[in-house]
Amino acid sequence: MNNFSYYNPVRIEFGRGTIAKLADLIPPDERVLMVYGGGSIKKNGVYDQVKKALAGRVLQEFGGVEANPQYATLIRAVEVVRSKEITFILAVGGGSVLDGVKFIAAAARFEGEPWDILEKNAEVKAAVPLGTVMTLPATGSETNTFAVISRVETRQKLAFGAEACYPIFAILDPETTLSLPDRQVANGIVDAFIHVLEQYLTCDQDAPLQDRQAEGILLTLIDQTERVLKDPKDYAIRANIMWSATQALNGLIGVGVAQDWATHMIGHELTALFGIDHARTLAVVLPSLLRHEKANKKDKLLQYAARVWGISDGDDDTVIEQGIRKTEAFFHRLGVPTRLSDHQVDLEQTAPIVARFSKQNARMGETQSIDAVAVEAILRASA
Amino acid sequence: MNNFSYYNPVRIEFGRGTIAKLADLIPPDERVLMVYGGGSIKKNGVYDQVKKALAGRVLQEFGGVEANPQYATLIRAVEVVRSKEITFILAVGGGSVLDGVKFIAAAARFEGEPWDILEKNAEVKAAVPLGTVMTLPATGSETNTFAVISRVETRQKLAFGAEACYPIFAILDPETTLSLPDRQVANGIVDAFIHVLEQYLTCDQDAPLQDRQAEGILLTLIDQTERVLKDPKDYAIRANIMWSATQALNGLIGVGVAQDWATHMIGHELTALFGIDHARTLAVVLPSLLRHEKANKKDKLLQYAARVWGISDGDDDTVIEQGIRKTEAFFHRLGVPTRLSDHQVDLEQTAPIVARFSKQNARMGETQSIDAVAVEAILRASA
Repeated sequence: MNNFSYYNPVRIEFGRGTIAKLADLIPPDERVLMVYGGGSIKKNGVYDQVKKALAGRVLQEFGGVEANPQYATLIRAVEVVRSKEITFILAVGGGSVLDGVKFIAAAARFEGEPWDILEKNAEVKAAVPLGTVMTLPATGSETNTFAVISRVETRQKLAFGAEACYPIFAILDPETTLSLPDRQVANGIVDAFIHVLEQYLTCDQDAPLQDRQAEGILLTLIDQTERVLKDPKDYAIRANIMWSATQALNGLIGVGVAQDWATHMIGHELTALFGIDHARTLAVVLPSLLRHEKANKKDKLLQYAARVWGISDGDDDTVIEQGIRKTEAFFHRLGVPTRLSDHQVDLEQTAPIVARFSKQNARMGETQSIDAVAVEAILRASA
Repeated sequence: MNNFSYYNPVRIEFGRGTIAKLADLIPPDERVLMVYGGGSIKKNGVYDQVKKALAGRVLQEFGGVEANPQYATLIRAVEVVRSKEITFILAVGGGSVLDGVKFIAAAARFEGEPWDILEKNAEVKAAVPLGTVMTLPATGSETNTFAVISRVETRQKLAFGAEACYPIFAILDPETTLSLPDRQVANGIVDAFIHVLEQYLTCDQDAPLQDRQAEGILLTLIDQTERVLKDPKDYAIRANIMWSATQALNGLIGVGVAQDWATHMIGHELTALFGIDHARTLAVVLPSLLRHEKANKKDKLLQYAARVWGISDGDDDTVIEQGIRKTEAFFHRLGVPTRLSDHQVDLEQTAPIVARFSKQNARMGETQSIDAVAVEAILRASA
């Protein structure tokens, strides 16, 4: 195991009716900005629950944060934070809203050009305190420091992370997820599943507990997927999915081990260029990437096939291939396709992605084995 | 899944050479009290590493905290904290030292009789800030709020917990564990294993991720036990054991589920009366308790036998019994006995334990099914 630091101070309030706890979680004299997305929270009752919990407070609202939150939108929110002297930002929605709020919170306290936080990895030393009511189990953003922000005019989708951007609290009420469209439920499960694989399917590490914890999340997501497809309105199932998505990216399964994340780097480019849902880009890239990297990841791919999918008969190549096919079938079961052509994207259209990685001299993956040439091969195999 | 709150702000620094990080983790103007046990840290180099990292600081020492830390000893430390105006307490050692420090930290800020914290569950609202260099993987105390304190004159061993007692940081360097006596390594593994079972082997909960996470720790401890017995000086193995012990009692696998802890309550009495090592009391109580409670815990005992020990052939009673026997054999493999008679304790000598639980009208376990009559039956079966 490699040396590591782990620190995750997010206070989690999980379960039915927990939105009411906002009244205690946010001190009464804070000047609060409530940030949300396209307005689904007004239909499913979450907006009303938040307003009720914070009745009588100084409370501003900022709606309209997009899926793949846009830099220009967030900069407008930064101006609100400054002009209204906001002291606490509450993200109400899914990972995009929360990622947007992390950036708003950092940018509002940043001296200099906020875009540098994303493009130049400028250090974020402070942020406006923030919390979240998370209504979409997927990104794990509720218990980590990371955010991914898009800029439509330059077709960029860039990430940053800073300890100052940890939510002070995360309210997770599985009831808020019962009204999600099927597509978002499916995307969320695939996103969480691949978050685990990015940390787990790597070169071998001698970190058996992290492996078991990762496999536990994968097995749970697989089991709960069958349950939720049969019984989409069951609270207990939604609770298990929500908690699995949080555990997938709270940092714990990734401590002390090398991590990959190349699927995400390539997937972000597919979203930036073609607007494909984040999880769906990952489902396109991952299978081809695993096949391309099967020498590096051989031991872990065999372990994955055996422990997660129960496949161990046959030579190594056969077992690994069967494990990857089971993964693809799992995504298909959720209605999530695994080919670029399913998204009406031709291979030729992906040339700018390869060019961008080439220009950056990119070396991705846990052994830095994925360069622009590898990206081209992976995208071709995913065509 | 039940509603739950989870908050664990301990900053973990894990790996070789991490004791040097004390220099950054403790602010330079703190007045530090370094608390330790019987002096093993002076033999294995840990003491010197701490002193080097904190060179030039205001640093007092308080050694001699016992295994099963004694109230009278800790009260002497409280006097040092007050008289020397200590602002930070550093626990260097195992779970007993850290538990002792949690109590010292709470008692030093407590108005009133400190014993009330233990006997009357008096609320602990504040504590002197504390951190730890943990040298013995076992109790999980490094990332939780709990402490167990003994009072020799009344033969009591009592627990308390308070958010103010979370360590601010926990340094976990597996190298510090290489010099542990075999008996302490074995005790630590058994202790961690049973911490998991207290949270996992309960009535059924529909919390499949918590189950998988618990099983992951159990499977890792079983695998690493075989490895450490063959190769006791291997850093990687010690690292896996240390991280497993931390994960066993950081609260994560116990969120949203009923928990048992009756084995601990009975075990504490055996330590208080007969001075048996904590882990060894648990190994005596647990198998009989599981047999006694097998109706309540049936589904989970079947799952445990199948997933952890690979046993699923036979009728339910046979599978459950085989799972419990495998557990006993695992403790024996570590040299940890499972009978009162192995500790030269006769059944008659345990009458005061039954009497104490009877007087308290105790109802323990996740379904409150374990009363004094049950304790008597469990102890008889463990004779």
